[in-house]
Amino acid sequence: MAEEGVKLYGFWLSPFSRRVELALKIKGVEYEYIEEDLQNKSPELLQYNPIHKKVPVLIHNGKVIVESQVILEYIDETWKENPIMPQDPYERAIARFWAKFIDEKFFPSFRKAILGGETEVEKVIEETKENLKILEKVLEGKNFFGGERIGFVDIVANTIAYWVFLFQEAAEKEILTEEFPILCNWKDKYINHNIIKETLPPKDKSVSFFRARFAQSKASS
Amino acid sequence: MAEEGVKLYGFWLSPFSRRVELALKIKGVEYEYIEEDLQNKSPELLQYNPIHKKVPVLIHNGKVIVESQVILEYIDETWKENPIMPQDPYERAIARFWAKFIDEKFFPSFRKAILGGETEVEKVIEETKENLKILEKVLEGKNFFGGERIGFVDIVANTIAYWVFLFQEAAEKEILTEEFPILCNWKDKYINHNIIKETLPPKDKSVSFFRARFAQSKASS
Repeated sequence: MAEEGVKLYGFWLSPFSRRVELALKIKGVEYEYIEEDLQNKSPELLQYNPIHKKVPVLIHNGKVIVESQVILEYIDETWKENPIMPQDPYERAIARFWAKFIDEKFFPSFRKAILGGETEVEKVIEETKENLKILEKVLEGKNFFGGERIGFVDIVANTIAYWVFLFQEAAEKEILTEEFPILCNWKDKYINHNIIKETLPPKDKSVSFFRARFAQSKASS
Repeated sequence: MAEEGVKLYGFWLSPFSRRVELALKIKGVEYEYIEEDLQNKSPELLQYNPIHKKVPVLIHNGKVIVESQVILEYIDETWKENPIMPQDPYERAIARFWAKFIDEKFFPSFRKAILGGETEVEKVIEETKENLKILEKVLEGKNFFGGERIGFVDIVANTIAYWVFLFQEAAEKEILTEEFPILCNWKDKYINHNIIKETLPPKDKSVSFFRARFAQSKASS
């Protein structure tokens, strides 16, 4: 059995599940991974997360924690070695701010820019690029958002380092390009990072999955 | 000058500003309050929060913190007396979960139920009531979400205890009623709580404000 009864319900292509796996790996916490079929959710998933019915779900000694950013903070507060959050309250506030920015502002606008129809798409692309410029400024002069090493914001930013490129390839549309050299440089370090590499889903299979998904949603819209 | 150079940029009717004021009062931190004119934002607000251009903005010894939930955690970590977050990591995760639920799930659906047109409004009202039922269960057997005293979730839930009722009166529509006795009981304790009372905007002025706002948005839709 995994250390201290740690179980993770996830989905191979979910960046949110992968964040939790990455945090557990950084901490060196062993865990049992249970792959969910999102088309046919298990009774356990529905029981553990009745409100959102989503992965990831972390179980630790019988306690249930959901929502990826909430889980990341729980992991950091429970296993103290290799902290992913800064130690200073102000730095911690800044990390929470950027994580929120990535999930609530950057990614929804990127998604719309990639998947949106013709209406207003130019405006959304412009907005997405503005957001990328903002993130470039945050990264300027640093190896990672966390400074010298991977931190909370980097873990949350797996959507930018990897899923953005999967979406772009599947949709045959480019927004995050060499036009943003700091982000591209960070992305290269990110996807080649020893521990992170293990948590990224296989590229070809992922692109095929999204390509099919995008074609489907186009057909039904 | 206020203790340790604490300044808050807010708007009298913003529940998000009021959350920060409540937390500062619970902690006994003196602060200078600057009222913003949201129709004509000050250069300071735009400089301090260039990304969202919103209140509240907290300045502490020259450091700028934005986003109400992020500010609340910063305050709790900076001034340790009268903690608003639980001490146990799991309890803290649960508090973050419910705060997120209130801001991202409950309130947007309530708003739509109150302000939405005819289309699908019944469905949204149903969903809002489901969310209220869920929150009733969380409160069952407790004085506050925080247990015996006001905590993080209660502070965030000011939208439910007060703004919900302002919206309902302004729109002449009721969703949160005696049908939810536990929430109503909590609301009564909440709005009559010594410290909280000071942070709630005057009722008649607030209702008039929202009534005018709702009429305007109806006219322009």
